[in-house]
Amino acid sequence: MTALRALVFDVFGTLVDWRGSIARESQAVLSSRGVSLDWPAFADAWRAQYQPAMEEVRTGQIPFSKLDVLHRRNLEVVLQEFGIRDLDEATKVHLNLAWHRLDAWPDVARGLQRLRERYRIAPCSNGNISLMVDLARRNGLPWDAILGAEIAHDYKPKAIVYQSAAAAFDCTPHEVLMVAAHSNDLAAAASAGLRTAHVARPDEKGPGRGESAPSVPVDLAARDLLHLADQLDALH
Amino acid sequence: MTALRALVFDVFGTLVDWRGSIARESQAVLSSRGVSLDWPAFADAWRAQYQPAMEEVRTGQIPFSKLDVLHRRNLEVVLQEFGIRDLDEATKVHLNLAWHRLDAWPDVARGLQRLRERYRIAPCSNGNISLMVDLARRNGLPWDAILGAEIAHDYKPKAIVYQSAAAAFDCTPHEVLMVAAHSNDLAAAASAGLRTAHVARPDEKGPGRGESAPSVPVDLAARDLLHLADQLDALH
Repeated sequence: MTALRALVFDVFGTLVDWRGSIARESQAVLSSRGVSLDWPAFADAWRAQYQPAMEEVRTGQIPFSKLDVLHRRNLEVVLQEFGIRDLDEATKVHLNLAWHRLDAWPDVARGLQRLRERYRIAPCSNGNISLMVDLARRNGLPWDAILGAEIAHDYKPKAIVYQSAAAAFDCTPHEVLMVAAHSNDLAAAASAGLRTAHVARPDEKGPGRGESAPSVPVDLAARDLLHLADQLDALH
Repeated sequence: MTALRALVFDVFGTLVDWRGSIARESQAVLSSRGVSLDWPAFADAWRAQYQPAMEEVRTGQIPFSKLDVLHRRNLEVVLQEFGIRDLDEATKVHLNLAWHRLDAWPDVARGLQRLRERYRIAPCSNGNISLMVDLARRNGLPWDAILGAEIAHDYKPKAIVYQSAAAAFDCTPHEVLMVAAHSNDLAAAASAGLRTAHVARPDEKGPGRGESAPSVPVDLAARDLLHLADQLDALH
């Protein structure tokens, strides 16, 4: 790890609790319109549209579109699934921006502050720049830059997304550590030449429904970002 | 100014003293190799190559290249002009990165902290992302994101650079204020639809060789970033 110069991070699930936050935000917006439903199930259904929508970009069926745009298209599908009709445009816009109002896991702000002392840090997320900026402001995330899908004009797990992040930091892929709570993200990053660190988020998708350990080979595995910082400190 | 949502900034000259810093850094690197010369003149000569190099990108003669790459090509020209030969590669690399070691004007860190309270802020510079990151770390500049030429894959004053910065923040151009010490930069930003603020840097290119006032119509004109923050506060 001696030549490591930068750390890039998955965000949804790894740094922020998308499921609990989307459930809360959806309830806040929709319950005042008389809607009552299983809010975590609504969050899961919205998230279930995520990969298929990005796949249309990855395969070239549609041109690159910001995740906010895909989230909005997916929202229409989910509203229909749950039988929610006649929402006005302003409400839909506000509900779609629920993805800008996600809360970070408790270790994240302090962990990033520590990791930033030794390394350049940036998100390498499929979220768009403005979404990342709003999450950073809300949760006090001290990014050096916002990298990821909108810079690369494509979506993870395509190699170009990881490689563009490294290039923006003037790093070779091997000088960059990709940090994520998802083994498939880390496997793709490793294939693109990056080093990898897994962070356990065992309750990401509900109690016990998250990765408590990686299912692929990784360079480091940590309980949270503070544990990751401890491990990297120990290498110095 | 009620609908203003983001501020984007020119960097070289507006936020950082490129001339004094490049003179100091060049002297630090070259004097130990026995070189003695007029260091501010060396800085001016290097900077004189800046616009012609970017013009090759803007006109499509060469593909987009990071400013670090153009600076390096320009360095070779300037070394020859000053009769400096036989520098080893590591020295040239270190000298070229002098542009990552520029000092901010005294009002900048505090001014940006204040401006960030109300608005999203980012550089909209021709400098590349890693260069902006190093200047931010050195000088404590609290950017929300790094926008500008490397995001747009073209160089100011092309309209796409200003418009890409606005789009990354989910803003219309009119919701964004471009801040610069150079009237030509502000005229181009205004043509691209942005609002404009001039900041006086009367000594940018040496004593009395900088703009103390704009020579084009602007929305705001300030003595420094703190004065700009005062003016924006007064609108609320």
